[in-house]
Amino acid sequence: MKEIYLDNSATTKACGSAAAEALRIMTQCYGNPSSLHTKGLEAEHELKAAAKTIANAISASPEEIYFTSGGTESNNTAVFGAAKALCRRGKRIVTTAIEHSSVIESAAALEKEGFEVIYLKPDSSGRISPRQTEEAVTKETILVSIMLVNNETGAIQPVEEVRRIIKRSGAPALFHIDAVQGFMKMPVSVKKLGCDLLSISGHKIHAPKGVGALYVKSGTRIVPLHRGGEQQSKLRPGTEPLPLICAMAAAVRDYPDEREHITEINRCCRKRLSETEGIVINSDEQCLPYIINFSAPGIRSETMLHFLEEEGIYVSSGSACAKGHKSHVLTAMGLPPEITDSAVRLSFSDENTAEDIDIFTNRLKTGLRTLARSK
Amino acid sequence: MKEIYLDNSATTKACGSAAAEALRIMTQCYGNPSSLHTKGLEAEHELKAAAKTIANAISASPEEIYFTSGGTESNNTAVFGAAKALCRRGKRIVTTAIEHSSVIESAAALEKEGFEVIYLKPDSSGRISPRQTEEAVTKETILVSIMLVNNETGAIQPVEEVRRIIKRSGAPALFHIDAVQGFMKMPVSVKKLGCDLLSISGHKIHAPKGVGALYVKSGTRIVPLHRGGEQQSKLRPGTEPLPLICAMAAAVRDYPDEREHITEINRCCRKRLSETEGIVINSDEQCLPYIINFSAPGIRSETMLHFLEEEGIYVSSGSACAKGHKSHVLTAMGLPPEITDSAVRLSFSDENTAEDIDIFTNRLKTGLRTLARSK
Repeated sequence: MKEIYLDNSATTKACGSAAAEALRIMTQCYGNPSSLHTKGLEAEHELKAAAKTIANAISASPEEIYFTSGGTESNNTAVFGAAKALCRRGKRIVTTAIEHSSVIESAAALEKEGFEVIYLKPDSSGRISPRQTEEAVTKETILVSIMLVNNETGAIQPVEEVRRIIKRSGAPALFHIDAVQGFMKMPVSVKKLGCDLLSISGHKIHAPKGVGALYVKSGTRIVPLHRGGEQQSKLRPGTEPLPLICAMAAAVRDYPDEREHITEINRCCRKRLSETEGIVINSDEQCLPYIINFSAPGIRSETMLHFLEEEGIYVSSGSACAKGHKSHVLTAMGLPPEITDSAVRLSFSDENTAEDIDIFTNRLKTGLRTLARSK
Repeated sequence: MKEIYLDNSATTKACGSAAAEALRIMTQCYGNPSSLHTKGLEAEHELKAAAKTIANAISASPEEIYFTSGGTESNNTAVFGAAKALCRRGKRIVTTAIEHSSVIESAAALEKEGFEVIYLKPDSSGRISPRQTEEAVTKETILVSIMLVNNETGAIQPVEEVRRIIKRSGAPALFHIDAVQGFMKMPVSVKKLGCDLLSISGHKIHAPKGVGALYVKSGTRIVPLHRGGEQQSKLRPGTEPLPLICAMAAAVRDYPDEREHITEINRCCRKRLSETEGIVINSDEQCLPYIINFSAPGIRSETMLHFLEEEGIYVSSGSACAKGHKSHVLTAMGLPPEITDSAVRLSFSDENTAEDIDIFTNRLKTGLRTLARSK
């Protein structure tokens, strides 16, 4: 049975060059980048080269790249780090109700410490409006944290307008963008976005799990989340996970030129879904083509997920991190329970083919008949 | 030129089975352990098997193992997490002046937040005394954090006596042991040690860099350092770095039966050093045999380090994390500047041979003649 993996926003398979690079560093260039001898210098050289690759991918400088253990740590470092650095200038944080849990839970923890957090609500398309943002960002706002692409719907947020709003407001706010789902999948330039902090993750772009990075604009001071040695300017101490860092750089370097292919897969899939009776598409056409969220009202997400996987088709019922909980994203979009309870997320990679979409839609149609009957 | 790597306390080369396991998980078992489909379940199964292996190695239960990005994060999570969980019961923390920077810097950050931190000083052998500890642990003490083996000298700390002292004191203190340098190199049983929290790291035992674990005794509540999804009971959210976790389990499973060999290497090296004029050994015979710290008064550590590496011999001038800074460990031991400025750390693995020690001591002797002359 052919395996059809349509869950690439949960995690991806490491690409060949990322895996090979991890292996090379683990077994050959195994020095500690902080060691003073040649084996350490060799490792430090690899570390710097990787930082350059990542920096180039987002139009940053290598010194602005801090490696972390992944998207969660990058987001945590940004949110806690900015709040603690600026807490004397204000207590107000503006974010959205559709952020990844690593931002929402950090903000919630800060609320308990006395910060005031505004969670902007999206409209039914899954986007927050600049107008709302304008009202929320006051002079006391010290942090605005907004994702580039929503992980459940693919909705692209108006981050450049948010940047302009912050500027106009006169607030001392740092601007953090969680770019985990957009990185490598759409143009991401920290210069163009005008952000102070930007999070990325390796395992969403065919690097291994366990590595990510935080861009920190030169001159921006945030309080470190981790404490320890002298590594990474003490902003993120601890021996750098060099095999993973170099694997992430390899994944970036060899990232396939897939956007046209993905757009075509999306177009084809969207057409099939819109022709299928009993299906409601939750991601509109302006969403990033890597993600399509749809619902089959009356059939619970998990029921459909397991029905699809019997034919080797892997999808998600929401985000993997929420593990079966009700989607806070679709709920915030104001969608009714019959839609949120039956939502399925497809997320593509360059390995998916038009044939995969055929097999998927045929199985989906069988599911709609069989499962609806048995409910 | 043969490469003689005597810096295994800084980091180790990943062993064959750890590297192979990382590769297998990266490319074959690439699912997200939180995904609800088979690929997720397969990954979750691997995660649980790895937790069992790590738990067995320290006589814990798999549910008591939380995977982290390494020793620094494990130590940070333990120190901050315990302090924040118990801050209403007291503000006093007892640790030592010779801990790893990830403990010392965490404690220092807590001092700024109003905690009172006692840094126990070691004697000239590099050990803290139970008597001192007894005086320091008052009824208001909420955390005692002490390392099992010092990373610069190999001095084993009296952790079991410390446990008894905490118990007798009636303090609500949680007991954290940083076992990064002792794990797999001496018996480490959380039952026997009687600790509540224990940190380990992968890359000191031939697993790749970027993974570690924190043992949290069942029923012990600490406040998480990271915030996000549902992973690892929310104590350590974020997609688990499965390739690294399974690699660490493989490294534990296939850890060589090396203790006798290391003891012999240590004995042989110690004999040579003690016969060499101009050398002072800083690690006494009760230290863990994996580490020997010595000084060549009059020759700066870095000068000797670079002289040795010209012959492919890699040693450390202290801990890699301090990168050339004055050793806080040797200073705390009360050693004079001529000793601390010329200290060299050797740290062994099973790949080191008696021949390596011959080559090293010959080169060292040449160094003592040549470098002393040129100073």
